[in-house]
Amino acid sequence: MKTYLNEMKNRVENKMMEYLEELSYPKVMTEGMKYALLNGGKRLRPVLLYMTLDMLGIPKDKGDSLASAIEMIHSYSLVHDDLPALDNDDYRRGKLTTHKVYGEANGILIGDSLLTYAFFIASTKSSNIDNDKLIKILGLISEYSGIQGMIGGQVVDIESEGKIVDLETLQYIHAHKTGRLIRLPIEIGAIIGDLEESKKNLLVKYADLIGLAFQIKDDLLDIEGSFEEIGKPVGSDIKLDKSTYPAIFGLEKTKEILNDKIIEAKNIIIENFPENNENFLNLADYIMNRSK
Amino acid sequence: MKTYLNEMKNRVENKMMEYLEELSYPKVMTEGMKYALLNGGKRLRPVLLYMTLDMLGIPKDKGDSLASAIEMIHSYSLVHDDLPALDNDDYRRGKLTTHKVYGEANGILIGDSLLTYAFFIASTKSSNIDNDKLIKILGLISEYSGIQGMIGGQVVDIESEGKIVDLETLQYIHAHKTGRLIRLPIEIGAIIGDLEESKKNLLVKYADLIGLAFQIKDDLLDIEGSFEEIGKPVGSDIKLDKSTYPAIFGLEKTKEILNDKIIEAKNIIIENFPENNENFLNLADYIMNRSK
Repeated sequence: MKTYLNEMKNRVENKMMEYLEELSYPKVMTEGMKYALLNGGKRLRPVLLYMTLDMLGIPKDKGDSLASAIEMIHSYSLVHDDLPALDNDDYRRGKLTTHKVYGEANGILIGDSLLTYAFFIASTKSSNIDNDKLIKILGLISEYSGIQGMIGGQVVDIESEGKIVDLETLQYIHAHKTGRLIRLPIEIGAIIGDLEESKKNLLVKYADLIGLAFQIKDDLLDIEGSFEEIGKPVGSDIKLDKSTYPAIFGLEKTKEILNDKIIEAKNIIIENFPENNENFLNLADYIMNRSK
Repeated sequence: MKTYLNEMKNRVENKMMEYLEELSYPKVMTEGMKYALLNGGKRLRPVLLYMTLDMLGIPKDKGDSLASAIEMIHSYSLVHDDLPALDNDDYRRGKLTTHKVYGEANGILIGDSLLTYAFFIASTKSSNIDNDKLIKILGLISEYSGIQGMIGGQVVDIESEGKIVDLETLQYIHAHKTGRLIRLPIEIGAIIGDLEESKKNLLVKYADLIGLAFQIKDDLLDIEGSFEEIGKPVGSDIKLDKSTYPAIFGLEKTKEILNDKIIEAKNIIIENFPENNENFLNLADYIMNRSK
């Protein structure tokens, strides 16, 4: 799994750099976009797209532009989240955040550029995908990353700071703030691979389960991890009284829930996708056991 | 002309509201998006798309989703430009700016939402446009609104504050910061209307000329207008030592240049588009003579 993750990480990073090479001006933007993109991320979302294509027997190059686009959107969301008016974070993964290096005005515009360039790459570099499918995919990308998806989750998360939220609100936040962008690559892979509707829905269910597990694990690491492991001050989300599973259920129960979600996700794969499924099973374990 | 402008303004505002009605949650976002969008703008960019379709004999409903998308992108750019880290403007068109009403964090996210929703509307509400054309159009929208277009111009504009810039830099700023988004609707109309390449290039030339004229007129109004006329403190761009034609050429020469651009734009239309061209000619005059 580690080898596969690294290979896919390198693949999408090379593609993203190739796409960024097409830009040269204004320099502060091209450098800032690179800085934001190459910040040591795990590239989980691109990996999920490649994994889905692999399982369905589709050549990986059909995923390059869209994997890059999704990662650019993920990256822009981190740049904007870190801004002083939002989470006001100075560090991410052990490095200064983008606005700390390039200033706040450029931080906002670098985020805007990444988001817009994601749509440019998706729409101009996907000629190996049928245009009818591509339009459908572009609709999904914008739905899952906008107010109906990621931004919606982010807003409710901010609104919930310092409050005790109910489980329903917390689930909305997780499903939207991180969940939709984890569902996205799997659903795109299923569209490219012409997967039948019922099977696609099962893969989406898997995506939602590991997306939730990923978020719960993040919250656990934020409590139990060290700065070296997670690359930002430990407990930073607790300080802001952010809504988390540990805050609602306590540590032990949260670990149990995490374990249950992983088992449920793996069972969906075992029962419905018996072939070429190793990556899907291994990734679920990896998410539960990762230390950063 | 006034009647046509009003009709098209109403048309696109009704469409945008119809699209926004599909969103209900989180409320602060849907309200903030509406506030930002319904701020009394002239809707010049949507008007340009409808004008182009009209001249080419294409039904206006083929332009509704894309006119709305372009205006949402224009609107997001204003919301982000007004932020404290950028222009730090409290008023726009006589009303409080979006972040002054909804707070800075929401201001950033409302801008992000508008940009993302623009791509959602363009890709999911354009089923009356052939998908091959639509993909091409989505590529153009993202190119002209991103680092290769509007954002690029914005960044160089910020970099030039307090400096004396040469004419080449000033032209880059104008062509990108405002020019590309004025070229966009005309080029989209030409694509939808299957206009041959050479004719399309002439319309693009017209767009670039009136785009530049629009910007020059803005700079003149900023010097000579009143708060009531332009809706923000007079001379706010001069205070920041922003690069403008009046700053380089002085008032009289600038007015001459404005007049020349308008004549050149009208001549392109008269010589190459002799039929149904009244709106294109009238709009050029309107841009030169407007008082806000």
